[in-house]
Amino acid sequence: MRIERPRGTRDFLPDEMEKRRAIEKVMRRIAESYGYREVLTPTFEHLELFTIKSGEGIVEEIYAFKDKSGRDLALRPELTAPVMRMYVNECMGMPKPLRFYYFANCFRYERPQKGRYREFWQFGVELIGSDSYLADVEVISLAYEIMSALNIKFDLHVGHVGLLRHVLRDLDEKVAGKIMRLIDKKDLDTLDSYINEIGREDLKEVVYPLIELVGDTDIIEEAREIIPDFDFTHIEKVAKTLDDLGVEFKIDLGIARGLDYYTGIVFEAYAEGLGAQNQICGGGSYRLAHLFGGDDVPATGFALGFDRIAEICEVDVEKPTKVVIVSFRGLEKEALKIANAIRSKAVTITDVMERSVKKQLSFANDISADYAVIVGEKELKEGKIAVKNLRTQEQSVMTLDEFLNKL
Amino acid sequence: MRIERPRGTRDFLPDEMEKRRAIEKVMRRIAESYGYREVLTPTFEHLELFTIKSGEGIVEEIYAFKDKSGRDLALRPELTAPVMRMYVNECMGMPKPLRFYYFANCFRYERPQKGRYREFWQFGVELIGSDSYLADVEVISLAYEIMSALNIKFDLHVGHVGLLRHVLRDLDEKVAGKIMRLIDKKDLDTLDSYINEIGREDLKEVVYPLIELVGDTDIIEEAREIIPDFDFTHIEKVAKTLDDLGVEFKIDLGIARGLDYYTGIVFEAYAEGLGAQNQICGGGSYRLAHLFGGDDVPATGFALGFDRIAEICEVDVEKPTKVVIVSFRGLEKEALKIANAIRSKAVTITDVMERSVKKQLSFANDISADYAVIVGEKELKEGKIAVKNLRTQEQSVMTLDEFLNKL
Repeated sequence: MRIERPRGTRDFLPDEMEKRRAIEKVMRRIAESYGYREVLTPTFEHLELFTIKSGEGIVEEIYAFKDKSGRDLALRPELTAPVMRMYVNECMGMPKPLRFYYFANCFRYERPQKGRYREFWQFGVELIGSDSYLADVEVISLAYEIMSALNIKFDLHVGHVGLLRHVLRDLDEKVAGKIMRLIDKKDLDTLDSYINEIGREDLKEVVYPLIELVGDTDIIEEAREIIPDFDFTHIEKVAKTLDDLGVEFKIDLGIARGLDYYTGIVFEAYAEGLGAQNQICGGGSYRLAHLFGGDDVPATGFALGFDRIAEICEVDVEKPTKVVIVSFRGLEKEALKIANAIRSKAVTITDVMERSVKKQLSFANDISADYAVIVGEKELKEGKIAVKNLRTQEQSVMTLDEFLNKL
Repeated sequence: MRIERPRGTRDFLPDEMEKRRAIEKVMRRIAESYGYREVLTPTFEHLELFTIKSGEGIVEEIYAFKDKSGRDLALRPELTAPVMRMYVNECMGMPKPLRFYYFANCFRYERPQKGRYREFWQFGVELIGSDSYLADVEVISLAYEIMSALNIKFDLHVGHVGLLRHVLRDLDEKVAGKIMRLIDKKDLDTLDSYINEIGREDLKEVVYPLIELVGDTDIIEEAREIIPDFDFTHIEKVAKTLDDLGVEFKIDLGIARGLDYYTGIVFEAYAEGLGAQNQICGGGSYRLAHLFGGDDVPATGFALGFDRIAEICEVDVEKPTKVVIVSFRGLEKEALKIANAIRSKAVTITDVMERSVKKQLSFANDISADYAVIVGEKELKEGKIAVKNLRTQEQSVMTLDEFLNKL
């Protein structure tokens, strides 16, 4: 009987892992250069952490289970709620603002489809303590810089959920939430029927032109004409500062985000080459801590869809020099000592199969080694080793020190 | 209502994460220098992967749950079975030997206690394709080198489950398994009653002296006197080669390991400073692939208990230079541009709270920044910035380039 991995999950083999680690390294380097520091929360949390405010979309897809004491647990579907739970548990007394980043796996239970897996990775940041436009500018710039450094072709859209919330403010919260989710899904047919159903056809005159406004910073003027009683100061400052910093983006007032906790600026990035599942970044400002028993602290952040980014981006993966030690029978001890000496300078692989010299050399070629170091009786007596360059096929005899200096 | 993290789990704040990442880096560097390459398997697997052969001890403590289709899943309690499942699914055709390493979280469901968590991390390797003594020597040397590089005080014990299996060979498999587990737990009272219960008091004459044999390589001679019909060649070669390589260890014929899949050499390391829960490494040779539908390939490996190691080891954590940009009101745009220029050389933090200059400086001290760069009207007009060294309190005016050269 063959045991398969669970549906919708993946195994990562070395080549893929090296690529993913190289991408992760770029993300870490840039986030750290902005003063963000890594945190990590448990893989599972109490289910209620995610049901309080994360929104229907996410809750339906949660991997929930009971532990042996009957407590409802959930594999985390996202990291913002856990990080804010951690903030409430342990960080409320720290000097603000707090800058945290994470790189962690999340889980969703849905039909597996191209580019969506049941276990997936997110790289994200949370900037906790500020509702200034400067906080939004920082996290948007940071997301932009990371995606640019990875040579991804993407469109960055910046919006403000406050506008739609303002327009829908006299509706019941659930009704407004449903409308926001339909806008988020761009499911305009269902949206139209739903607005008819609740008898608020009047909303169409405001909502429809608003969610179609996508363009440069000037477009904010057009939005002001549609909802003159909304205060556009914040989004205007964000947009102008991003323009000043050379961040390329579009204002998009139709961004509603699938999560219910956003309060102000929201943003998303879409990449080329991913088909329908092209969103690689989502974020915005939110308030969550007070729902978890903490203070009503403002925060802003984003998450990058790591798997999708890994699918489309090209990164340089460092390939260290690889040396295979080939030893004649009986010289294993000497071969292992020579290997230990070379290891500080290069990846060094010794025979563990008790193979013939010929087969050891053939294995060195199989794994694309750069050098074969041949440990033979004759050379050993002279205090030397035979070194074969497997790229050029040149072979020469030298001391171990001479070889170490070559590396 | 305050939401807490689940019992037995931890949040890792930045200082702790930096330490853990520094330790992980040492482990990766050394494993990679031996030619091991990273792999990653899903966080959950089909439950049967762990129930086939992992042994009672581990199965009782598994976090098992059903997914929405009623399939039995389990959060992985260890990585060897998943890596071998991956080997069977995807790697059987690759040139042997295969050298894989992993750094991943595992889960156990038991009463939380000091040094044992419900979510914990393991760093481990699997060397697949060889049952030569050279394979055992390699993984033991590698574990030894990693623990030594981390400046841990530890005792490394090397044994061979084949001896005990040989002595218990005419017993029912379950009975033998129970005896092995009691030996593993060092629960000698229960062992004694159990041996009496099954009416095999004769075993005591062989088992008791055998499991008390702990000492240097010469001790193998004493074991040979106790069970003269066992072939000691393999453990002798392993011990002598390790001696040759300067690996310090004791032969310990009482190592039984808690997992049922081991077949030959087994080893464990115990650290000072951890109390009763002092095992930081466990490994050995095993055969698992054929149980998962693959070939009957020999393998050997180990797992290091990352959390325990993190508790006791001291590592140098790199502290990058930290610069805080302090800006006067109205100069935010200029401050952000200056920050972007400094970021390639140092961690650079800007104000996101719209605070006064005084409060920005005070925050710079709160977070132990190295420099405050003060962006003021007067200096800007001269194309300069004011730089305050927060270690020496010296302040001077210079161009941005001059500051970048200082970093």
